Amino acid sequence: MDKRVIEKETVPDQILQLGLGFWGSKTLLSAVELGVFSALAAGPIRSDALIERLGIHQRSARDFLDALVALGMLNREGDHYANTAATDLFLDRRKPSYIGGLLEMANARLYPFWGSLTEALQTGEPQNEAKHGGDLFESLYADPARLTAFLQAMTGVSMGSARAIATQFPWRDYKHFADIGTAQGGLPVQVALANPHLSGVGFDLPPIRPHFEAHIAANSLSDRIVFQEGNFFADPLPSVEVLVMGHVLHDWGLEQKRELIGKAYEALPNGGALIVYETIIDDERRQNAFGLLMSLNMLIETREGFDYTGSDCMGWIREAGFSSARVEPLAGAESMVVGVK
Amino acid sequence: MDKRVIEKETVPDQILQLGLGFWGSKTLLSAVELGVFSALAAGPIRSDALIERLGIHQRSARDFLDALVALGMLNREGDHYANTAATDLFLDRRKPSYIGGLLEMANARLYPFWGSLTEALQTGEPQNEAKHGGDLFESLYADPARLTAFLQAMTGVSMGSARAIATQFPWRDYKHFADIGTAQGGLPVQVALANPHLSGVGFDLPPIRPHFEAHIAANSLSDRIVFQEGNFFADPLPSVEVLVMGHVLHDWGLEQKRELIGKAYEALPNGGALIVYETIIDDERRQNAFGLLMSLNMLIETREGFDYTGSDCMGWIREAGFSSARVEPLAGAESMVVGVK
Repeated sequence: MDKRVIEKETVPDQILQLGLGFWGSKTLLSAVELGVFSALAAGPIRSDALIERLGIHQRSARDFLDALVALGMLNREGDHYANTAATDLFLDRRKPSYIGGLLEMANARLYPFWGSLTEALQTGEPQNEAKHGGDLFESLYADPARLTAFLQAMTGVSMGSARAIATQFPWRDYKHFADIGTAQGGLPVQVALANPHLSGVGFDLPPIRPHFEAHIAANSLSDRIVFQEGNFFADPLPSVEVLVMGHVLHDWGLEQKRELIGKAYEALPNGGALIVYETIIDDERRQNAFGLLMSLNMLIETREGFDYTGSDCMGWIREAGFSSARVEPLAGAESMVVGVK
Repeated sequence: MDKRVIEKETVPDQILQLGLGFWGSKTLLSAVELGVFSALAAGPIRSDALIERLGIHQRSARDFLDALVALGMLNREGDHYANTAATDLFLDRRKPSYIGGLLEMANARLYPFWGSLTEALQTGEPQNEAKHGGDLFESLYADPARLTAFLQAMTGVSMGSARAIATQFPWRDYKHFADIGTAQGGLPVQVALANPHLSGVGFDLPPIRPHFEAHIAANSLSDRIVFQEGNFFADPLPSVEVLVMGHVLHDWGLEQKRELIGKAYEALPNGGALIVYETIIDDERRQNAFGLLMSLNMLIETREGFDYTGSDCMGWIREAGFSSARVEPLAGAESMVVGVK
């Protein structure tokens, strides 16, 4: 083939945009770290005042702020910068809808850890605190402020899927549900708000209790949603009609995934349902880039975890004895797999 | 405003995709480092053979390769992986069109340096080798293989703009041109190929000469394009009718930008033209995210460099004495500013 013909049709733009995509990504992460969106939560601020407030150097301050405008993360009117509706809702530290805790963690931990992706791919070993004998969750549980930020971020990140599950699943057929690895209880809150006939349990480790109970109380649901302390490997799961596992299975290897699904089967009555939700990969493994990259994040963060397709998960669910299994898309890159006993 | 109404309309997906955008970016950079696209240049390879050839661990190998499929960087047919037309052309190390040198540099240097973006924004200081007393170009000039890869990458990256300039600019009105900071001579080659009546000069530092002359000879243009050794601050610029400065001005502070434009004015005859091209930022500083991020890259990489708008550049050109100035978009995120004396 004539090389010049190919070159005329093929430009490297898409390759360069992806390969240098960490520029825009890190710019947003630094903006969260510097508190740009929290500073603007009370209203637009003129550029000189904003730059002073953020404590950033004049040299690149306007490039930084205007890059955030071009990336769709800020608005600019005259010489005043303002949050967008989305960044005001999700990136102002003082709002309960803040998901910046996740991005703060991405900035402080994942960005440098992903710098060792090549080594992770070559060795199959995690590249986080575990590489030097540390443990993420131990250090998180030891620092209440950091734990709060992390749990709050998880609630924000799960919000879209929690709301979709609250309306898509046939809750009218059930009365009691439990959310396994519930964190703040973001999912039980959404499910209970949309379905007043339901009562539910949030199941998680003891240090989570005060965070969960505060979130449930803030949503005036303490009469219908309670906390149950437990370790989902060591303890039996709650006996309810519907069990939910969101962003849980991908943390673990195949044997532990099967073990958790088996424990759900044992705990459920006939006709009961297991709902698994996260960034389920499309069966062809061609479309859901975010799900496939999430699986590489499990490589960076865990010893055996990985994400999986809906078909994989339906297979494990059927093998555990469930009589039916189906996949339904939720918000964004997430889906749920439903198994009925 | 009712918070629930806002939340229903506003989802955090765009924020999360951008904030975690370094996942996909680093995945491509690791693929270039591991030689995925060079391995596939001879044709599709079955997954097990490819994984063995790349020397990567079984654990996440399929997630890695399928993520590259989902990101549009590989094709997959049955169990065989293949390059796309673009990745085959631009990311196979053995092709002259390889631009992976730039991504290898982004992987080894820029990714970790951008990890200190917050510090750069706070101090206004570069975060590259200069932070610890080193110098990028000195080390590059001392390592011929690395210099070759870097220059080749620059040629690939400039290809789209070089071709656009070769046809968009009214070359019929001129006979002699010079490219200032020419590297391999990627621009002179494209301009001379499209305009057989022109002869040109590539102007750069002495270590560049053999790389330039090899590239010109490979394109059979040694009779019309010659190398002229020089330092664009210390030495006079070539006396020709058209001077081109591509990816040069953004490396420098305002005074040095003005100095270079002034030297171009002095060197040109009346009616002569200066062409400046790079990722010129749109005048409103709202659209060209890549140009604004490139300016932050100049923060990371240089003491005073920054990118600028077409309007900024036209102002400097007019102040230097040029009688007219205009901006024309080129390929991708780049534009040229043309000043006529």
